[in-house]
Amino acid sequence: MMQNEKLKVHPLSELDHLKVHGRTTGCLSPLTLFWTGSAIELNVKGSELWIEVESDYDNYEPWISIVINSVPVSRQMLTAGRYWVCVFRGMNENTVKNVRIVKDLQAMSEDPGHSLQIHAVKADGEFLPVDEKSFKMEFIGDSITSGEGIIGAKAEEDWIPMWFSAINNYSTLTAEALNADYRIISQSGWGVLTSWDNNPHANIPEYYDKVCGLLTGDKNEALGAFEEHSFDSWQPNVVVVNLGTNDAGAFHSPEWKDEGTGQTHKQRLNKDGSYNEEDLGAFEEAVQNFLTKLRKYNTNAHIVWVYGMLGIPLMPAIYRAVDIYMKKTGDKKVSVFQIPNTTDETVGSRSHPGVLAHQKAAQELSGFIAEILAR
Amino acid sequence: MMQNEKLKVHPLSELDHLKVHGRTTGCLSPLTLFWTGSAIELNVKGSELWIEVESDYDNYEPWISIVINSVPVSRQMLTAGRYWVCVFRGMNENTVKNVRIVKDLQAMSEDPGHSLQIHAVKADGEFLPVDEKSFKMEFIGDSITSGEGIIGAKAEEDWIPMWFSAINNYSTLTAEALNADYRIISQSGWGVLTSWDNNPHANIPEYYDKVCGLLTGDKNEALGAFEEHSFDSWQPNVVVVNLGTNDAGAFHSPEWKDEGTGQTHKQRLNKDGSYNEEDLGAFEEAVQNFLTKLRKYNTNAHIVWVYGMLGIPLMPAIYRAVDIYMKKTGDKKVSVFQIPNTTDETVGSRSHPGVLAHQKAAQELSGFIAEILAR
Amino acid sequence: MMQNEKLKVHPLSELDHLKVHGRTTGCLSPLTLFWTGSAIELNVKGSELWIEVESDYDNYEPWISIVINSVPVSRQMLTAGRYWVCVFRGMNENTVKNVRIVKDLQAMSEDPGHSLQIHAVKADGEFLPVDEKSFKMEFIGDSITSGEGIIGAKAEEDWIPMWFSAINNYSTLTAEALNADYRIISQSGWGVLTSWDNNPHANIPEYYDKVCGLLTGDKNEALGAFEEHSFDSWQPNVVVVNLGTNDAGAFHSPEWKDEGTGQTHKQRLNKDGSYNEEDLGAFEEAVQNFLTKLRKYNTNAHIVWVYGMLGIPLMPAIYRAVDIYMKKTGDKKVSVFQIPNTTDETVGSRSHPGVLAHQKAAQELSGFIAEILAR
Amino acid sequence: MMQNEKLKVHPLSELDHLKVHGRTTGCLSPLTLFWTGSAIELNVKGSELWIEVESDYDNYEPWISIVINSVPVSRQMLTAGRYWVCVFRGMNENTVKNVRIVKDLQAMSEDPGHSLQIHAVKADGEFLPVDEKSFKMEFIGDSITSGEGIIGAKAEEDWIPMWFSAINNYSTLTAEALNADYRIISQSGWGVLTSWDNNPHANIPEYYDKVCGLLTGDKNEALGAFEEHSFDSWQPNVVVVNLGTNDAGAFHSPEWKDEGTGQTHKQRLNKDGSYNEEDLGAFEEAVQNFLTKLRKYNTNAHIVWVYGMLGIPLMPAIYRAVDIYMKKTGDKKVSVFQIPNTTDETVGSRSHPGVLAHQKAAQELSGFIAEILAR
Repeated sequence: MMQNEKLKVHPLSELDHLKVHGRTTGCLSPLTLFWTGSAIELNVKGSELWIEVESDYDNYEPWISIVINSVPVSRQMLTAGRYWVCVFRGMNENTVKNVRIVKDLQAMSEDPGHSLQIHAVKADGEFLPVDEKSFKMEFIGDSITSGEGIIGAKAEEDWIPMWFSAINNYSTLTAEALNADYRIISQSGWGVLTSWDNNPHANIPEYYDKVCGLLTGDKNEALGAFEEHSFDSWQPNVVVVNLGTNDAGAFHSPEWKDEGTGQTHKQRLNKDGSYNEEDLGAFEEAVQNFLTKLRKYNTNAHIVWVYGMLGIPLMPAIYRAVDIYMKKTGDKKVSVFQIPNTTDETVGSRSHPGVLAHQKAAQELSGFIAEILAR
Repeated sequence: MMQNEKLKVHPLSELDHLKVHGRTTGCLSPLTLFWTGSAIELNVKGSELWIEVESDYDNYEPWISIVINSVPVSRQMLTAGRYWVCVFRGMNENTVKNVRIVKDLQAMSEDPGHSLQIHAVKADGEFLPVDEKSFKMEFIGDSITSGEGIIGAKAEEDWIPMWFSAINNYSTLTAEALNADYRIISQSGWGVLTSWDNNPHANIPEYYDKVCGLLTGDKNEALGAFEEHSFDSWQPNVVVVNLGTNDAGAFHSPEWKDEGTGQTHKQRLNKDGSYNEEDLGAFEEAVQNFLTKLRKYNTNAHIVWVYGMLGIPLMPAIYRAVDIYMKKTGDKKVSVFQIPNTTDETVGSRSHPGVLAHQKAAQELSGFIAEILAR
Repeated sequence: MMQNEKLKVHPLSELDHLKVHGRTTGCLSPLTLFWTGSAIELNVKGSELWIEVESDYDNYEPWISIVINSVPVSRQMLTAGRYWVCVFRGMNENTVKNVRIVKDLQAMSEDPGHSLQIHAVKADGEFLPVDEKSFKMEFIGDSITSGEGIIGAKAEEDWIPMWFSAINNYSTLTAEALNADYRIISQSGWGVLTSWDNNPHANIPEYYDKVCGLLTGDKNEALGAFEEHSFDSWQPNVVVVNLGTNDAGAFHSPEWKDEGTGQTHKQRLNKDGSYNEEDLGAFEEAVQNFLTKLRKYNTNAHIVWVYGMLGIPLMPAIYRAVDIYMKKTGDKKVSVFQIPNTTDETVGSRSHPGVLAHQKAAQELSGFIAEILAR
Repeated sequence: MMQNEKLKVHPLSELDHLKVHGRTTGCLSPLTLFWTGSAIELNVKGSELWIEVESDYDNYEPWISIVINSVPVSRQMLTAGRYWVCVFRGMNENTVKNVRIVKDLQAMSEDPGHSLQIHAVKADGEFLPVDEKSFKMEFIGDSITSGEGIIGAKAEEDWIPMWFSAINNYSTLTAEALNADYRIISQSGWGVLTSWDNNPHANIPEYYDKVCGLLTGDKNEALGAFEEHSFDSWQPNVVVVNLGTNDAGAFHSPEWKDEGTGQTHKQRLNKDGSYNEEDLGAFEEAVQNFLTKLRKYNTNAHIVWVYGMLGIPLMPAIYRAVDIYMKKTGDKKVSVFQIPNTTDETVGSRSHPGVLAHQKAAQELSGFIAEILAR
């Protein structure tokens, strides 16, 4: 191999022009990428670029996608260790390449050992400023928003990082269509009130205020995951909430039991198969409370509650809750929007929405949000 | 990271069930993958799989794609060195995964240092037999068949490995549609008679008899690239030749000159812009000679000369040459088939066919070949 | 012209096997087709078929489409008069053709002179039984359900029968996808409470009980349009209501005034552009009342309120009204379903949904209803 | 019905602005439309338009399509007689409508009684000039170009006018894509040398010089069908010939016998199923002769021989014949172009190309011709 003698290492903290996507602590030495879709973005004038990553996990390894000039060119598992990954080489040193290194896997609440960090980049050229997009968007959701099922054969059933992706994800596609920067806050299996299996702690709202509060363990604490998130630093124009799918599932799942405390929880069905009113009410209250919290932190954002990629059983409850919230608060900047259901033609792996389902959702959703942004 | 204590290393040569795709020397210690689309295929019952690769190059690095249960899940650059790459981990140990590790870059005649080898696999389970497909196909071509331009933004202009791919390539898609095993023999810029820049040595037919004869250098010699290919070991049902695009380009390119010998070559245009008859005749003779050679080595294959993804200026000459060959030899198993041109909507990077162009070509071509195979 | 001497006239009332689609009075001498999508359906074994129509109007002429073996083959204006229209000729006399003659224009409340009648058929063969479909569906709506804009250039602005169609209409396409017989009750410009221009009499619910109660004039009275509809004779499995688009428009239209009585009506906007609460309440009450009426007449039908092909401004109100209705009555067989918005790519003439918009709506809606029917 | 008192009859011959499409005799009192796709085109400023047609036939009745502002709005059978057909009514009298009344059925060589004439138009406004398009194109072909199979269910087998159409025909779509006026010369079952059933008189070239020479009978003679066509009056930029499909069929059909003269003809197969060389030679000569005739009459046109919508068995012979013609004559403005084959997904009625097949063909062909026209 011919060595490129001109390569120079730049710690992230010393880069003149670096754009970081996704909620982080602000620390760049190193930068920890917590959420799916979080990324570093660079405009590089040079022939070659490497990044120094540090990957760790107990069970679930990180994946990244590399996007060059807006087109995905590589996607790979990052096995444990600290090492250099080559992003490109042999390119014309006089042209500017826009590069995004994207975490292609959600924050992993089930794996306290999981982490992905970027220490430095290595290049033979210079770094130029990266433009801000016209809008900022935040997507909050569950496995659908985590892109579970976007990759892999329909027959796949294992719950592993390989099948998750932020690329070809409705959130990414919607943001692209609207020319928006975006962040994703999502966790597979979680809901507004409970997880699919009735765990009342597995809800996004409880952890929304922290940088990445749904993680666990000392390591994540040390990484700053549990710090208060600085909402002032990044105020979105639109917040999309895609939650409710697991809350609906909970009604059909067995009781959850905390083996330690003996605490149990169960969203109950009536005998005729309809939702227990009290439990449904708890869900609706959770929606209202989350809206209140979202508004507290995102003063001017239009909030769009989307639902439908895996059915709409809780849509009446969502509409009810949003209605009550809006009447109570006078907040007018909230909408509900149904996105298309997944079909046999559009399904991906693990019975989750596939690429075609995400494309359809993004097409409808971006049309709806474009009208809001145009007002 | 939790260590998987059950992993066991298997040198390729000791694997019970291994399917190798693409022309190789037969050596497995290690296996050298020369051509794009060449691959190892495994049926693995186990939770985790790694492969030990060895990558080298002066300028142009190898890339691989990983295909699991027929779906691409990863694509990555292989920087120089000998190391382990994890294919999957954390999967259900009781299910069988079909895995293909595919060389995603053509043989690199311009880089004598380029090589990709696989030494061993590491897994915690067992390897099961891999089925043979119904048919065998060979694709012979230039940059189109090398998948140049399938990856990357339309604006990309660098001639680098990153933009090449065997995945979403018309050859791969056609073989899939027909349930065929397949091999690719291709080189960007080359033709039947000359390269796009009139180099009379940059023609595929001259090197067709060798394992990978168009490579150069002592290293490739040592790897066995220049050995006679054992045609008996793998007789295709169909040979698809997609050559002529660079031969047409040569008429519009400056003279080629061998600085060492002073030898020159130029396919000439007449003053009115039409092809010089003598030079066109040389092209047609080259087509005839290649057909003769192809028939010599592929006794029963149906040969389909395809052309058109970047225009059809030489189609009359191809038809003429095939006609003369068939009349001369009585060989009836040769066809010419035009495949759809690339348009603004279907173009990829480097002004080459993009994914949509390859899909269209595969759709038309597989329909045509299906009729031949059904006879 | 060669005369077909074997043709024999059959008054509709004397046909052994005739299937009539759409709400009618039951009279066959002649049969009056009131609603769009209403039709006669025949299975004809013979070489030639004619129908004797009688068309009349003051301003808005009827149109028909002819559907043979489920494929539209002809569409034509019916100018005033009583005359024979040839459906097919010269066909194999031994094969059975399924034929539908479809009214391709809505009931015309604005034209008391408008009528379309079928007196008889003429054929040279025999008529065979027509199968019942698996399900029965009723679609209730406005211009969208009347198929306004399905035909014609985007630039068309005239409000004329030519641009309306029951073919390529989401209702027809949904029924086809579900293998259902169907009826359409629709009127362009009308709503649940008022028309787009605030006319409180231009609402569908008020006239739902009659055969075609929204028509006017002595002629229609004589034709039986104002008779009570016999709901017992045809009980749908699913009732789709697509109303609300004009009710939303009313808020943005000037006051309506009855010149005779001096009565006025106006759905008001607040100063900030939001809907006046009282008027919105009136809309919601109208929705509830219509559901009550629908349930009265369609005892077992699942009622699906769909909305969205031209935006969703009243969706919260619809959900609220449906919610209150369901809680009040205990009726569980009601759903709300959002269908995709019309875009620049899918719009037809007169700024209404075009063929592509109707196809998309039918695809989503039929998926949703299929799940209901499968329960 | 309210009478429109302002309607005024205009014999075609007295119209200031009338555009006639298709080969005609030039006579306007009345105008006879012989070929499919032939039409009158008007720009009408008025609220209502009628045309006075005269239709006749022994067996095969004419059909028309009505195209308003480039969109088809009506399609109907014209039963025998002379009568008025309403094109539109009730439109804004101040806007200009572009209207085409298109013969939607090929010239009917098998029915000497078949004719379609237009005597006059009736309107309440004025007629404005109709623009010339950028280019002129002529399409010459068989059933494919006659649009046989574009209408109707896949199961249809009757050979009747209803299944033919000039709308959604590759010829019409190609001309639209290129902004060209166009004419069609076509006959179902016919070839360059013989018909599908070996009739050596059923070939297009023999009758190409006449207005519509392939018709028969005294009536057509009286209508001027056998007059010399005035090629000077309309010189196309491109002539597309889509012939050869029936010539290939002839090899697989029984001998043709003229019962009167005893003359027989048969294109023979060799025992191995290949084409008899002598008969194939006759086909190739017919191609060459037709090219010579086409060039004689169309001095500057680029001639494109297209083939492939129902397979390409004679493509080598077509290339050979074109090659010989070009070498012999020095004519450089001739190309051969393969268009996509019809598949299960794109087939229409009577096993002929359906709408999707015609759209695909038009897309590829218009791309190819656009490059020729851009030179």
